[in-house]
Amino acid sequence: MLQIPGPTNVPDRVLRAIDAPTIDHRGPDFAELGLEVLEGLRTVCRTDGQIVVYPASGTGAWEAALVNTLSPGDKVIACETGHFATLWRAMAARLGLEVVWLEGDWRHGADPERIADALDDDVRAVMVVHNETSTGVTSRIADVRAALGDHDALLLVDTISSLASIDYRHDEWGVDVTVAGSQKGLMLPAGLSFNAVSEKALEAAKAARMPRSYWDWAPIIAANANGYWPYTSATNLLYGLREALQILLREEGLEHVFARHARHAAATRAAVAGWGLEVLALDERELSNSLTAVVCGGSDEVRRVILERFDMSLGAGLGRLADEVFRIGHLGDFNDLMLAGTLSGVQMGLKLAGHDVGDGVGAALELLAA
Amino acid sequence: MLQIPGPTNVPDRVLRAIDAPTIDHRGPDFAELGLEVLEGLRTVCRTDGQIVVYPASGTGAWEAALVNTLSPGDKVIACETGHFATLWRAMAARLGLEVVWLEGDWRHGADPERIADALDDDVRAVMVVHNETSTGVTSRIADVRAALGDHDALLLVDTISSLASIDYRHDEWGVDVTVAGSQKGLMLPAGLSFNAVSEKALEAAKAARMPRSYWDWAPIIAANANGYWPYTSATNLLYGLREALQILLREEGLEHVFARHARHAAATRAAVAGWGLEVLALDERELSNSLTAVVCGGSDEVRRVILERFDMSLGAGLGRLADEVFRIGHLGDFNDLMLAGTLSGVQMGLKLAGHDVGDGVGAALELLAA
Amino acid sequence: MLQIPGPTNVPDRVLRAIDAPTIDHRGPDFAELGLEVLEGLRTVCRTDGQIVVYPASGTGAWEAALVNTLSPGDKVIACETGHFATLWRAMAARLGLEVVWLEGDWRHGADPERIADALDDDVRAVMVVHNETSTGVTSRIADVRAALGDHDALLLVDTISSLASIDYRHDEWGVDVTVAGSQKGLMLPAGLSFNAVSEKALEAAKAARMPRSYWDWAPIIAANANGYWPYTSATNLLYGLREALQILLREEGLEHVFARHARHAAATRAAVAGWGLEVLALDERELSNSLTAVVCGGSDEVRRVILERFDMSLGAGLGRLADEVFRIGHLGDFNDLMLAGTLSGVQMGLKLAGHDVGDGVGAALELLAA
Amino acid sequence: MLQIPGPTNVPDRVLRAIDAPTIDHRGPDFAELGLEVLEGLRTVCRTDGQIVVYPASGTGAWEAALVNTLSPGDKVIACETGHFATLWRAMAARLGLEVVWLEGDWRHGADPERIADALDDDVRAVMVVHNETSTGVTSRIADVRAALGDHDALLLVDTISSLASIDYRHDEWGVDVTVAGSQKGLMLPAGLSFNAVSEKALEAAKAARMPRSYWDWAPIIAANANGYWPYTSATNLLYGLREALQILLREEGLEHVFARHARHAAATRAAVAGWGLEVLALDERELSNSLTAVVCGGSDEVRRVILERFDMSLGAGLGRLADEVFRIGHLGDFNDLMLAGTLSGVQMGLKLAGHDVGDGVGAALELLAA
Repeated sequence: MLQIPGPTNVPDRVLRAIDAPTIDHRGPDFAELGLEVLEGLRTVCRTDGQIVVYPASGTGAWEAALVNTLSPGDKVIACETGHFATLWRAMAARLGLEVVWLEGDWRHGADPERIADALDDDVRAVMVVHNETSTGVTSRIADVRAALGDHDALLLVDTISSLASIDYRHDEWGVDVTVAGSQKGLMLPAGLSFNAVSEKALEAAKAARMPRSYWDWAPIIAANANGYWPYTSATNLLYGLREALQILLREEGLEHVFARHARHAAATRAAVAGWGLEVLALDERELSNSLTAVVCGGSDEVRRVILERFDMSLGAGLGRLADEVFRIGHLGDFNDLMLAGTLSGVQMGLKLAGHDVGDGVGAALELLAA
Repeated sequence: MLQIPGPTNVPDRVLRAIDAPTIDHRGPDFAELGLEVLEGLRTVCRTDGQIVVYPASGTGAWEAALVNTLSPGDKVIACETGHFATLWRAMAARLGLEVVWLEGDWRHGADPERIADALDDDVRAVMVVHNETSTGVTSRIADVRAALGDHDALLLVDTISSLASIDYRHDEWGVDVTVAGSQKGLMLPAGLSFNAVSEKALEAAKAARMPRSYWDWAPIIAANANGYWPYTSATNLLYGLREALQILLREEGLEHVFARHARHAAATRAAVAGWGLEVLALDERELSNSLTAVVCGGSDEVRRVILERFDMSLGAGLGRLADEVFRIGHLGDFNDLMLAGTLSGVQMGLKLAGHDVGDGVGAALELLAA
Repeated sequence: MLQIPGPTNVPDRVLRAIDAPTIDHRGPDFAELGLEVLEGLRTVCRTDGQIVVYPASGTGAWEAALVNTLSPGDKVIACETGHFATLWRAMAARLGLEVVWLEGDWRHGADPERIADALDDDVRAVMVVHNETSTGVTSRIADVRAALGDHDALLLVDTISSLASIDYRHDEWGVDVTVAGSQKGLMLPAGLSFNAVSEKALEAAKAARMPRSYWDWAPIIAANANGYWPYTSATNLLYGLREALQILLREEGLEHVFARHARHAAATRAAVAGWGLEVLALDERELSNSLTAVVCGGSDEVRRVILERFDMSLGAGLGRLADEVFRIGHLGDFNDLMLAGTLSGVQMGLKLAGHDVGDGVGAALELLAA
Repeated sequence: MLQIPGPTNVPDRVLRAIDAPTIDHRGPDFAELGLEVLEGLRTVCRTDGQIVVYPASGTGAWEAALVNTLSPGDKVIACETGHFATLWRAMAARLGLEVVWLEGDWRHGADPERIADALDDDVRAVMVVHNETSTGVTSRIADVRAALGDHDALLLVDTISSLASIDYRHDEWGVDVTVAGSQKGLMLPAGLSFNAVSEKALEAAKAARMPRSYWDWAPIIAANANGYWPYTSATNLLYGLREALQILLREEGLEHVFARHARHAAATRAAVAGWGLEVLALDERELSNSLTAVVCGGSDEVRRVILERFDMSLGAGLGRLADEVFRIGHLGDFNDLMLAGTLSGVQMGLKLAGHDVGDGVGAALELLAA
């Protein structure tokens, strides 16, 4: 049982789709596949704009967002919401960008007002992680956009652990580049990552002077028009993506997917309260629906006991939170009884590790059966 | 039936391995998997040096070879052996390198003497495609290395359609960066690519000033020491890689794999002769063992007939060879009877498309049964 | 989620084994497979005697036990322990046997003393269901054997829902024919069934005059000596059987399998007590470790709510128990957290269906974390 | 490569369907599956009558045909067309029927005139194997029916290696019981077998006094009305059956399937003639479209060489034909290029085993490309 906050449990159907024989990546069946998954991703991102799919991990899509839109020495704002925001900022610096770093306490999301205050004429982009996988805090992207006012800065948003799990609207919220990956809400193994790209970002790409080839949007978008890629894409993962989109968009429906995650997050928080523990996120408006970080000194021992005794992996505290929190993923292919089993395992593990906790499972079941 | 020169037919066993449930990419099982596949790739590349695995297509590993070892404006030599060499050269130019382009006729491999002549003090690297997938010509890497003498230039070699199909020796031949992909001799779907890296290349990386983050060898090699990656790797493709390495190294054995490809290539050329057609490669020392390009005006119609009538895809002529050749892949998970079926399909397709060809299949069977 | 008392959840590994390409049923690989699974089944049944595998449902193995050992008009004793005992008796009658039917209340196992009382010189066999899948009552086979004393009657035992889940000893307990199926403790899909056969039963078969061909042990045992079957066996299910035996015998170990089922059964009964409900089995010595039948008027509505709301199937009350009990399967590929999830679903379903039940899950978790 | 005349190569799609998780065999999804496969089998058998599916090998369906329609001591006619006809006759004798055995030379099908001659008032049934898997001879069922005139005898036909490969019409030809299995034309692994049953056979079943339970049509037909079975059926094989029916009926279409087999059989016979060898079947009207038996003394050595050298299994000579023929299966999931590969392997194997044969492959390719 894999209750880390991603990669998530991959549905059997998706695994089966992935193991189909490879097809000719220049043939007509491939083109049909390509066009179908691009259209599905548009729906998931709620955009009419361009989608770019890379055979790459999510960090590849981070890099793509930066190298397509910016030039060496450009000034960008980044917000310290947690471990992954910190890594993205380090990447930006490594690529030669000047990063204005808005420090944070890892218990809050990006602060729209502070971003507005940090804006000046030189700022070319604002980088925000929508859902911080290390903290279970969800930043308010629409508010961030509003805070930018009529400033020209591009808004670059990492949705790696939110897309297809938590409500997200690329076009409506005015995002310029969305960064996403295959291994969380999309219920695939890792290996694909994505950008959704606004018209404004495409314009910026024309002037951007970062050297780029693999990540360059232009040749991919050109080839994608007919359903192909300029190189051999990861065909088998695209099969899986088609199946996962079928489940998300046509069978369950995105609205139901979001509602399910919201219920599970609420039940998880009820359990945390029942145990007498504290959720890391401090702002009611920023509670994550895809994972919950629980404040718990000595969390590594709790995780060790749970893995050994119940064969369930929880997410560790990362970076400055090491051994201070554990993280419960409740995203992807997940249902009420799997959540009940997960919370039962956490409760038993906490007790076995010597924590004197109350009955959180009972509280969660009350909420789930409501 | 997929007789393009890659992606190759993926063995059922490998597909089944790929569809296993995802595991925690920070857990001990993952580390064991990581260390095992890295060691296996060392054996396949015949190197004691570093291996770097990317969740990316082969073009990603091309880029990695360049951005890790070079600085903007550096001078490199590239050899026009065919379509893929031309694409790699274009990438180098796009990344800001100064490329000395040794033109060629697409029927010969890289010429060691011309490379030696083109060397001057400013040349930092020589880029050679070992096996040109567009032409079926295999360049003589050891001779290229010898021609470099004691010049400091790095030798960067693309083995995308040769590794694990044709004899290749990273260390013995003095290659600095080997570029490879998952979807040909390694019998996996596309989605992983690789660099093998010499000590000299690692040294060069320290001074190289190309901006890089995703492709940067250093953090990957550091994390790899314990079997991990700095990001979520494509776990399911790594499962498949483990299975494929098991087949190649422990069951069939690399020497037998090479011998099988050599037999199949010889039988294919016997068939081509039997049909009264010509192989594109002109130099006996450069005949490819993994694919055969056949000179045949109007080849697109032949390919169309074969696909429609026998559901078999052959490789098209690429770039300047469009409609002038077709390419028969005989690599990956392939045996004598599949080759006989493939050649039978080509022979029937040639006749159906109006080519008055002789009995090539009979000649191939003679050779296979010898 | 399938929490009926079988067919059980089939482990992914076993499903993957089943989907391997078919092999020649007269070739050497098949023989190796055949010998391996027969030896493994001997270990599971704890017998040194013969094992006979049929491509058939469990009812086929019922019929095989009767037609191989008996003649038309023979007198047999059968014990009314529940729905399946009643069906087996009906089969015996249909095949022309004279059945002495020891009536029961469906809340107790076979009564050794009443069997002893019913024995007379004409009785040729005693038919007992080890674990009644309809009631969750486990008959005491060793006691039944003891009660037979030195009477010649054969002891025929149905272990369809106990084998490989609950301690069972064909040889030590003096059973003559064991009847088993693939779809419960052996964690396979339905489609294979088995007999384990004592020397005494083989002797009886020589004299038995029931017409038989498909079920005839003799030609199968003869062909099995070399690992083959006299007809095309269900090769792909045999692949799955090999994998399941690997898990049961070499990885987890039968003793641990039995202990796990005992813990899960005890936790389930703790939950039932916590809900304020009653287990159907009345004798402490006869509580089933593979399933629990819970007395609950209106159980069909509870099951309906649980299926609709939580997508979990529970076993219905069968025959005279219709709508009076529901049955929770806790056998096969099952762990603590799946049990916690299952019991959570039952608890929520009971409440949603209007039953005013207490906190059974908490009681079960106490026991599981002990 | 499995070129025995069944079990046939199972399409990947069908294997994937089979490895789906098991469902509740009493739930609504199962009923839908059950009704769909029964309807599909009706179409395949070309009958509006009843279909009965058994989890059993084909020999089980042989037995079912006999025990449902006949009484002990009944007189039946059976025709010695080959090994399997001989086995079916032995079964009938074992079950207590009186068999009139029309001897044959294993090179001809059932002879309608001799059957007519053998009819007397006591004959209750005529047993014919449509396509003898041991000889590659196809009996003319419509002619046999015509020869029966208005005699009351039931016509029982084994179509194990013809159904879904060779034109067959249960209703139009007046067959009473059709016997079939899953592992040949239906492209499934072994493990399911079938009866198609006429009204007249259902009537006969009412009076038939053979003891029967597992094979009894009545309870199965009753439960089937709602899509269920009276016992746990082999659900996963039923999944595979649904997928195979989809391919046969909706994608390729039965008429095209038959035409494909006819072409492949003709090409195979062209190859046999090209080798200078003889086909076992002597009557032009009785040439099998699903397999070809080739007369070849020392055939076991040829088969051994082919298995060792090319990893291809051919069918052995059975019974009195041992070492005198080899059999080439060309049925199931099979295409032109697989046939070309198969015939190439046979040709090379014949030469390697020291047979001085001509170029059969060339002749076959001529025919296939026509």
